Amino acid sequence: MRFVAEIGKLKGVLRQTTLFGEGLDRRENSAEHSWHLATMLLVLGEHAPRGTDLARVAAMVLIHDLVEIDAGDLFLYADAEAQARQDAAERAAADRIFAILPADQAAELRKLWDEFTARQTADARFARALDRLQPMLENLNAGGGTWQRHGITADQVLAKVALIEDGSPQLGAVARDLVSEAVAAGILQPAPERRG
Amino acid sequence: MRFVAEIGKLKGVLRQTTLFGEGLDRRENSAEHSWHLATMLLVLGEHAPRGTDLARVAAMVLIHDLVEIDAGDLFLYADAEAQARQDAAERAAADRIFAILPADQAAELRKLWDEFTARQTADARFARALDRLQPMLENLNAGGGTWQRHGITADQVLAKVALIEDGSPQLGAVARDLVSEAVAAGILQPAPERRG
Repeated sequence: MRFVAEIGKLKGVLRQTTLFGEGLDRRENSAEHSWHLATMLLVLGEHAPRGTDLARVAAMVLIHDLVEIDAGDLFLYADAEAQARQDAAERAAADRIFAILPADQAAELRKLWDEFTARQTADARFARALDRLQPMLENLNAGGGTWQRHGITADQVLAKVALIEDGSPQLGAVARDLVSEAVAAGILQPAPERRG
Repeated sequence: MRFVAEIGKLKGVLRQTTLFGEGLDRRENSAEHSWHLATMLLVLGEHAPRGTDLARVAAMVLIHDLVEIDAGDLFLYADAEAQARQDAAERAAADRIFAILPADQAAELRKLWDEFTARQTADARFARALDRLQPMLENLNAGGGTWQRHGITADQVLAKVALIEDGSPQLGAVARDLVSEAVAAGILQPAPERRG
């Protein structure tokens, strides 16, 4: 019960993603983001590579951001130094938060989180693909969102789409279409031309 | 993808539950509530009656509130007339929202939602138990929350605990302890004395 109360704090961790719609127009929090991933999985799970264990993927996406209770959320396009600091903070957070559970459950959830983070298995790669796809949909829905606010261009988004493709070729193709759609709609700037 | 974008609206549906903690102090929305239930399930699933299908329970709690995108959230202690209006609005919402999906997925999720609503199977009873337990924890965490704001007394809460017990005797016992704890802490008023 102490763990159940503790994880409620994730509702207070704000992400860069801006939500748009009735009663929204605010930043997304990591709890509702995680819900969105798990619910997407119910309808997009059929695009997972054969042999993917969808129950494990569901558990991964539900718990993947719990470390942000201590470490906060880092913007996807942060630099390498900020990313390294974040990684250390997240590992420390995982040490603290999962340890609230009885030892067997702590070990089980920590293993899932480590696997999600390492992205070496098919389950983790599919979970990470969902985690990358969802903010793209929110940015489209918000008419540009973080892309516009941070001056992100299509080439930067496409570099991240590679990770979606890696988890699911079908979802990767969907993501590429979304990028084209966003550029065509004028809500995502094309790659800047290089001068030579 | 249209369904995935549509369900994002659940982040804008506010519940009566008040959240408390760093960056919080606001009403909970139905998306983060649903995330909390699914994540509770990962650690409390062992208290489900033998034979419960935890993957089905997870799907139920993830989608159980989607109908609130159209119908809004109704307070647990609303009267019978308000509840009947809500039931009709939720059925109409289920007709619209699940129909956004391809027919096979629409039928599958609608069946789960109907089952959750009817509360006739072990899976649904366990899902409903989680749905009742979580706001009790938030109210405790918030030092009274909706109980105090609406003048709810311990006997009213205990009447709802019966439904938790029905889904899981172990979680029912936990919920009874929480009620005693809340009364002892002075954040939930005991049942009013009846005069003869």
